[in-house]
Amino acid sequence: MKSITALALAMALAPAAGNASSDVDGDLSAVAPALQRYERGVLDELWTRPGLSARDRSVVTVAAVITRNQPSMMPAQFRRALDSGVKPAELSEIITHLAFYAGWGNAMAAADAAAPIFAERGIETDQLPAAAAPLLPLDEAQEVRRAATVEQTVGPVSPGLVRDTGHVLFRDLWLRPDLAPRDRSLVTVSALISAGQVAQVPFHLNRAMDNGLTREEASEVISHLAYYAGWPNAFSAVPVAREVFEKRTAP
Amino acid sequence: MKSITALALAMALAPAAGNASSDVDGDLSAVAPALQRYERGVLDELWTRPGLSARDRSVVTVAAVITRNQPSMMPAQFRRALDSGVKPAELSEIITHLAFYAGWGNAMAAADAAAPIFAERGIETDQLPAAAAPLLPLDEAQEVRRAATVEQTVGPVSPGLVRDTGHVLFRDLWLRPDLAPRDRSLVTVSALISAGQVAQVPFHLNRAMDNGLTREEASEVISHLAYYAGWPNAFSAVPVAREVFEKRTAP
Amino acid sequence: MKSITALALAMALAPAAGNASSDVDGDLSAVAPALQRYERGVLDELWTRPGLSARDRSVVTVAAVITRNQPSMMPAQFRRALDSGVKPAELSEIITHLAFYAGWGNAMAAADAAAPIFAERGIETDQLPAAAAPLLPLDEAQEVRRAATVEQTVGPVSPGLVRDTGHVLFRDLWLRPDLAPRDRSLVTVSALISAGQVAQVPFHLNRAMDNGLTREEASEVISHLAYYAGWPNAFSAVPVAREVFEKRTAP
Repeated sequence: MKSITALALAMALAPAAGNASSDVDGDLSAVAPALQRYERGVLDELWTRPGLSARDRSVVTVAAVITRNQPSMMPAQFRRALDSGVKPAELSEIITHLAFYAGWGNAMAAADAAAPIFAERGIETDQLPAAAAPLLPLDEAQEVRRAATVEQTVGPVSPGLVRDTGHVLFRDLWLRPDLAPRDRSLVTVSALISAGQVAQVPFHLNRAMDNGLTREEASEVISHLAYYAGWPNAFSAVPVAREVFEKRTAP
Repeated sequence: MKSITALALAMALAPAAGNASSDVDGDLSAVAPALQRYERGVLDELWTRPGLSARDRSVVTVAAVITRNQPSMMPAQFRRALDSGVKPAELSEIITHLAFYAGWGNAMAAADAAAPIFAERGIETDQLPAAAAPLLPLDEAQEVRRAATVEQTVGPVSPGLVRDTGHVLFRDLWLRPDLAPRDRSLVTVSALISAGQVAQVPFHLNRAMDNGLTREEASEVISHLAYYAGWPNAFSAVPVAREVFEKRTAP
Repeated sequence: MKSITALALAMALAPAAGNASSDVDGDLSAVAPALQRYERGVLDELWTRPGLSARDRSVVTVAAVITRNQPSMMPAQFRRALDSGVKPAELSEIITHLAFYAGWGNAMAAADAAAPIFAERGIETDQLPAAAAPLLPLDEAQEVRRAATVEQTVGPVSPGLVRDTGHVLFRDLWLRPDLAPRDRSLVTVSALISAGQVAQVPFHLNRAMDNGLTREEASEVISHLAYYAGWPNAFSAVPVAREVFEKRTAP
C-alpha cells in the first residue's frame, strides 16, 4: 500500500505544466515551503480532475471565498473564473446572489474586489445584467409547495422572513436570467458547505440536482471545497449529502 | 398572486426617499447593478419596517458586522448607529461585550474601526463608560440558578470556563451600567444568530425576553439578520426561536 | 459570595507585571476603556494560568486567529509565539497544517502576515521545514482503522475526499516531522473549536489525547479559546469534550 501512496503523491505533487497556480504568493517560500509544494502539487492537480469542469470549480471557489469573506483570495479567483468561462454577467450575479446567501457585507467586499478586475479587462456595464431584468418563468406548483413549507415552519416565528423569502428570493432573485438556475444552486450549495451551514443543504442540494447538477458533480464539489473551505466543512457536508443521494435513488 | 407580488416588489424596490443608504458603494454599479437596486430597494425598506426601531436595527447590524468581522462595513454602520440614537457609550459597551461573545480579535478590529468615527465626531473619553464603573445590582437568585446549571454542565469539563463565566461575564460584564441588560441581550442574540451559533440561542433569547425584548422584536431581529448575516443563519435560528416562543406561551 | 467575587476580580483585573500584553491597541482607550482594562486584567492573567503552558497557549491562539482569519491579530500573536518557544519551523508547519483544516485562503493570509515577522527576526529558509521532508513512521494499524471508517462513511458520497484524506492528510501532512503529532492535534482541535465545528471534535480530541495531550490541558484549551474564539464556541465544545472524557475513563 505504501508504494501506491508514494506513487500517488509523486504524481500529485509534480508541478502541473500549463496550470501554474494564479494563487502563488511571493511570501510563501519564505514562510512555508511545504505549503508552496502542496499548492503546486495537489492544489493544481485538483483543478484538472474529472467530475467537475474547471469552469464549475471556479464557480464553487468564487462562492467559497466570498462566503468566507477572504478579499485577498478574490482577485486571483475572479480572474481565474473569467479565464475559465464564467461570464462577467455570471460573476456579477454570483456576487448579487451571495448578498442573500452569505450576507450583505460579503457581497459588498466582493464587489469592491471585482471592480478593478472588471476595469482591467474593459468589462463595461453593457456586459452586466440589467438591474431590473425580465425574469425567468416561475414554476408555480414548485413555488406553492416551497412557500407552504416555509409558511408552516417559519411563519409562526418570523412573518417578515417568510415574506422576503418569497418576494425577494424565490419570486425575484432566483428568476433573474443571467445565471442559470443550476449555477445559482451550485453557488448556494457551495456557500452553505463553505459556511458549515448543513441545515439547509438538503433543500438546496435537492434543488441543485433538480436543476441539473449531477451526483458526480456534487461529489466533487465537496472534495473541491475541502481545500478552499477546510476539511471540517467538507466532512460535515458528507452525512447530509449522503441522505439526499440515498433518498433520491430509493425505489 | 402574481399581481400582489409585482406590487410588493414595486414598493419594495422604489428608492426610499430620505433613507438613502449610507452603505452605497461607488464600485457597486460597475460590478452588480442588480445588487445596487436591491440595496436601494429592499434593504432601505427593511430599515423602515415596523416591529423593530431603527435604533434597535442598528444595534443588531453593528453586532452582526462585528461578529462576522467585516471591518469594511463598520464605518457606515457605526455612523448610522450614532445617527439612530445609539449613544457613544453604548457603542463602546457593545464592542466590549462582543470581545467575549464574538471573540477578542473581533472587538479589537471594531475598536480600530470606531476610533476614527469617534474622532470625527469629537467624542471624548468623558462620553465613554468608565473602565471600572459601579455595577448594576445582581439578581442573586437568578445568578445562583445560572451558576448551578453551568457548574453541572461545564464543571466536569472546564473549571476555568465555569469560573470566568461567573466572575468575568455574569458578575461583571453583564452588570456594567452603560448598556441596558435588554440591549446587552439584543447584542448577544444577534451575535449568536450571526455566527450560526444556535446552541446558545435558547438561553440568551429567554434572557432577552426576560430583559424586555418583545416577541415581535425578536421576530424582526431574525428577518433583519437574514440580510446582514445571510439567509442560512436566519433560517437556522427559526426552529430554536420557535421552541423558545412556544415554551414561554405554554399554559 | 460577593466578597469572594470582588477579590477574584481585583486579582484578575490588576495589571500583571512583566506580562504587558503585546495586543495593546493605541485606539483602545479612545473607544473602549473597559475593554482595555479587561485586556490588561483578565486576558493577561489568562496566559499565566496553570494547566496549559504559555507556549501551548500560543499554539492555540495562533490556530484561532488563523482559523478565524484575523490578520490584524496575527503579527502580535506570531511574535508572542516565537517569544514563547514556538520554533519558526513549527509556526511554518502550523500555517501549512491549517491550509487543510481551516481552508487554503486562511493559510495564505497567515503566510502574508508571517513573512515580515520572519524577515524582522532574520529567520532564513534553513530554519524552515523542507518542502519534502522525510516523513515520520506511519502507525499502519491505526491508519487502516481510520481509512476503513472514512471509506465507509465518506466513500459513498465523495471518493475524491476519501482519497485526499488518506494520501494528502494522514499519509503525508500528519507525518511531516517539524511539528510533533501532539502539537498538530492541538492545532487541529483548536481550529475545530474556533470554527464552531464540533462534529469532528470527538475524533480529533481522542487523537490529541492519544498523542499526549492531557485532560487538564484540553480543559484549559477550551477556557483559553473562550477569549479568542468567543464564549459561544467554547460552550459548544463542552458537551462533545465531556463525552470524549467520559468514554476514555469508562471502566
